[in-house]
Amino acid sequence: MTAGRTDRRPGPHTRVRVREHGTRERNREDRVVTEEPLEIRLAWPGTPAHRVWTTLRTPGHDFELAAGWVAHEGLGVPTTVAYCTDETLRPEQEFNVVTVTLAAAPPREPVQLDALSAGSSACGVCGTDSVDEVLGRRRTTTWAGDLPGEDVVRALPDRLRPAQRLFDRTGGSHAAGLFTAAGELVVAREDVGRHNAVDKVTGARVLAGADPAGAVLVVSGRAGFELVQKAVTAGNGCLVAVGAPTSLAVRLAEAAGLALYGWTGADRTVRYA
Amino acid sequence: MTAGRTDRRPGPHTRVRVREHGTRERNREDRVVTEEPLEIRLAWPGTPAHRVWTTLRTPGHDFELAAGWVAHEGLGVPTTVAYCTDETLRPEQEFNVVTVTLAAAPPREPVQLDALSAGSSACGVCGTDSVDEVLGRRRTTTWAGDLPGEDVVRALPDRLRPAQRLFDRTGGSHAAGLFTAAGELVVAREDVGRHNAVDKVTGARVLAGADPAGAVLVVSGRAGFELVQKAVTAGNGCLVAVGAPTSLAVRLAEAAGLALYGWTGADRTVRYA
Repeated sequence: MTAGRTDRRPGPHTRVRVREHGTRERNREDRVVTEEPLEIRLAWPGTPAHRVWTTLRTPGHDFELAAGWVAHEGLGVPTTVAYCTDETLRPEQEFNVVTVTLAAAPPREPVQLDALSAGSSACGVCGTDSVDEVLGRRRTTTWAGDLPGEDVVRALPDRLRPAQRLFDRTGGSHAAGLFTAAGELVVAREDVGRHNAVDKVTGARVLAGADPAGAVLVVSGRAGFELVQKAVTAGNGCLVAVGAPTSLAVRLAEAAGLALYGWTGADRTVRYA
Repeated sequence: MTAGRTDRRPGPHTRVRVREHGTRERNREDRVVTEEPLEIRLAWPGTPAHRVWTTLRTPGHDFELAAGWVAHEGLGVPTTVAYCTDETLRPEQEFNVVTVTLAAAPPREPVQLDALSAGSSACGVCGTDSVDEVLGRRRTTTWAGDLPGEDVVRALPDRLRPAQRLFDRTGGSHAAGLFTAAGELVVAREDVGRHNAVDKVTGARVLAGADPAGAVLVVSGRAGFELVQKAVTAGNGCLVAVGAPTSLAVRLAEAAGLALYGWTGADRTVRYA
């Protein structure tokens, strides 16, 4: 990675020509959210870098995405995160491959990891196994600090909105934000994938050398199993979703002691766990 | 699978107790979309069933989901699809494992397949590789029939809505529907995962012995790379999304000759490719 090559790095949004039909008929320019694959490679002492996961993500904060994903998977703390400089990579792949180096071997083998990751970011086992496996990774959320009151919870989606500039431009991205119990924003990130946005938030904390856990994680969409899983493994106290939760999300949140809110807006919120 | 055990099969929505805060403070019952893992196993002559993919899905139309996923992956046509009767499965796993038997070995090895599936349903390669790989699977959409006019396209999301009963109950599901060029619904399915809903639509056609391709595939959410990929490999003529498209979706649709519409509603639509 050299400074001269940064012009090849794709931006978070991409300009395209479109044809609009409706009250107005016209050709115009539009901005769409950029979607590119990111391959994550893992290395540790005695074991060279090898691919463990690929996600479709919006470029930007790639190191945070990789560090957060590794943290949520319970694989350990990165010592370094860097774009891969493998000479076999083509120029267009240059910023789409990241290597995370761990201080020690992860508790699970990469082959297991790859299998566990198939199809979704962490769930590759069946039925209650997946809940047990997550709870085995971290049996309950470790958050021991204050939790937000209902008035704070209701205000959080509006407090996340100013950080959703990519959404304002493209309408195609999700956001996640970590907040204190008093409702102050710690860090917010956007991505075409809602799971990636959460990985970036946790990764931002990890790479800053901070505890990734916070009082409240807010997500702009629905709350499924995998988002609850990430909130629990990061050690957060509370997950607040703007949209609906799923049955498995409610079940895991209850088992892990994570407060789960859905349908959160200025006028109401619904507590599911 | 015996008739006496069907009571264990989870329904598409699940009842939970919630606490609502806002203009009304009350404990009440709510319905959330059911989310359970589905493991897909693949077998062919000389090769026993083995796991190739796991997805978090809404139970119901599981065989269609499996058959559609196999079709979109370009692995071949199933001869049978059945719930796994492996005696080592626990009762709660019984309806979460499906075996697809193919008439012949798939064009790719399962180990490759597993790697390709890591993290997303089909994209495990970097940058332009993923577009090339999909186009190699089916270089262009094979649809040679009529395409809908703009007036039909604008009406399609409203025509999909009556099929979204799970969404009406839970607010937590996505829908996909296959339509003729005249705007007549062929088949619609709902699922907690928007990719799964598309797999079920294609699988419904495959299991009915019909050509999975249709003039228009309509999706209730955004259009990302993987949804365009599925629309192309099924051979559809057009993908209509209610939400935003992504950069990679536009790029793949253009390369494959698939008409791609975003932001589709009663008053307008935007053609991206």
